[in-house]
Amino acid sequence: MRVRGAPLIGATAAYGMALAMHYDCGDENLEKAASTLIGTRPTAVNLAWAVNDMYSVLQPLSSKVRRDVAYARASEIRAEDISINHRIGKYGLPLLEEIARHKSAGSPVNILTHCNAGALATVGWGTATAPVYMAHEKGLDIHVWVDETRPRNQGASLTAWELDQRGVPYTVIADNTGGHLMQRGYVDICITGTDRTAANGDVANKIGTYLKALAARDNNIPFFVALPSPTIDWGAQDGMKDIPIEQRSAEEVSWISGRTKSGTVEKVCMVLNETAVANYAFDVTPARLVTGLITERGIAEASYEGLATLFPEYGTK
Amino acid sequence: MRVRGAPLIGATAAYGMALAMHYDCGDENLEKAASTLIGTRPTAVNLAWAVNDMYSVLQPLSSKVRRDVAYARASEIRAEDISINHRIGKYGLPLLEEIARHKSAGSPVNILTHCNAGALATVGWGTATAPVYMAHEKGLDIHVWVDETRPRNQGASLTAWELDQRGVPYTVIADNTGGHLMQRGYVDICITGTDRTAANGDVANKIGTYLKALAARDNNIPFFVALPSPTIDWGAQDGMKDIPIEQRSAEEVSWISGRTKSGTVEKVCMVLNETAVANYAFDVTPARLVTGLITERGIAEASYEGLATLFPEYGTK
Repeated sequence: MRVRGAPLIGATAAYGMALAMHYDCGDENLEKAASTLIGTRPTAVNLAWAVNDMYSVLQPLSSKVRRDVAYARASEIRAEDISINHRIGKYGLPLLEEIARHKSAGSPVNILTHCNAGALATVGWGTATAPVYMAHEKGLDIHVWVDETRPRNQGASLTAWELDQRGVPYTVIADNTGGHLMQRGYVDICITGTDRTAANGDVANKIGTYLKALAARDNNIPFFVALPSPTIDWGAQDGMKDIPIEQRSAEEVSWISGRTKSGTVEKVCMVLNETAVANYAFDVTPARLVTGLITERGIAEASYEGLATLFPEYGTK
Repeated sequence: MRVRGAPLIGATAAYGMALAMHYDCGDENLEKAASTLIGTRPTAVNLAWAVNDMYSVLQPLSSKVRRDVAYARASEIRAEDISINHRIGKYGLPLLEEIARHKSAGSPVNILTHCNAGALATVGWGTATAPVYMAHEKGLDIHVWVDETRPRNQGASLTAWELDQRGVPYTVIADNTGGHLMQRGYVDICITGTDRTAANGDVANKIGTYLKALAARDNNIPFFVALPSPTIDWGAQDGMKDIPIEQRSAEEVSWISGRTKSGTVEKVCMVLNETAVANYAFDVTPARLVTGLITERGIAEASYEGLATLFPEYGTK
């Protein structure tokens, strides 16, 4: 969990493979590095994508050249990620511009996001945040509702920090709040990232995403998912059935880190000592609740047909 | 916020009126006590109900007898609350028994609840928890999913503590988790309390309740609200329009209290110092998402007609 965010996990895994080759570029170590890295996180598909990509590039090569090719390919994956973010921003931006055209002066475009799909989860602009940053740079009046994203508070900490750094107006809210805001007309659009998207358009993302998608649907608010194509799992025909959901330590829920009044960082426990706690890290938002998938090739309908149209090279059932 | 939970707020307000009469039972102080108490919390309707009840009983009386009558009436309100809880439990219990009948041995009835509508929010059995406690006492195999209920964590602290005290199996979860559990078939029924219910069956309750009601509907899971009749606001024709939503301090979101490893209680801040935070305390769940209202007179359809059938003495538009 030192490295988080699906795209960053992918790029990091690619460099992990390169590092393994640096020390021992024999066949046995290539196999071992691939299986070890794939085993670390079950839900994020970029990990397997990047490792498999590295493996298929390196495996046919003689061990003499593996090290250099490994670093070169990892660097390409990293560069691709930056480029993908930028293109996602470019395709997402018109959604915000269109909303802005119907706003009166002084009324910002209100975007709700969940978890962190920003620059801290990728190696560039972020995915869900790329259109937001581009809109802000273009001078659009925008405001972001930031779900704190329990249990690890990636929204309250990472997303808020990123927006703060770039001067984008935002407000942190408890995860419980988004439905109320949507009912009252305080949200114009939801944009989240994804850890893995199934071929049918079902989206696995941070736990709680599904609840926001339900509220968006109930209030006729568009719900978009920003989606670098490496997070598409073409082998998963049905997201609800085929995407494994990682369960993590109960301590992530029961212990919270923060700064005390005196400025030190302290962890506090907010439940009874003997309390049973469950910690499901992700949920699956069914494609029917997703207005569109913002990819680096344009916005796809959240369906097999929608994805296959944009990615015909993968989209053969 | 020392006193929380709609029914307990009502009973406490009644004793507040009695206490005011204890010190000065003149007309002026009666008026002042009533208006001061009503001003303290905008969403919970029991407060106004109890204060207005006390006022209408005391106002016609001479100041000589007001003090004694005030204590007597407050005591009645308290006794009524206990009796109401018990009857809510009695009417809610068959819902759990019916689910249990279709469960295989070793599979508990899984109940999801949000916030604390337990004994700590009332003066007796609790409202949402009354059927749960009765089921447990009758030996039904039950298990409660306890939403931690950010920002004040009434679930993780109060509800968990109550269930623990009574030996009811439970698991604390982040508020984001309930939708996922419902998708996977891990929840059989949702039961929450309410701070105010409009005459049309719209339910104001702790922020986030609406999201769980949406998830329950999306997964065909019954969503019940336990409802002592003093929380019905017959003057509110439309909950979405007529129920004011209290906004509370940002610090409730940004600062969290807990125990450190060394056992001391410490508050920690989990956002940037300069972060904007919004804190809406309640939301309104539309009647269309509520399977039924468990009242002290039986289970009503969440509609004006449903409520008026059980409470004909109030139900005249």
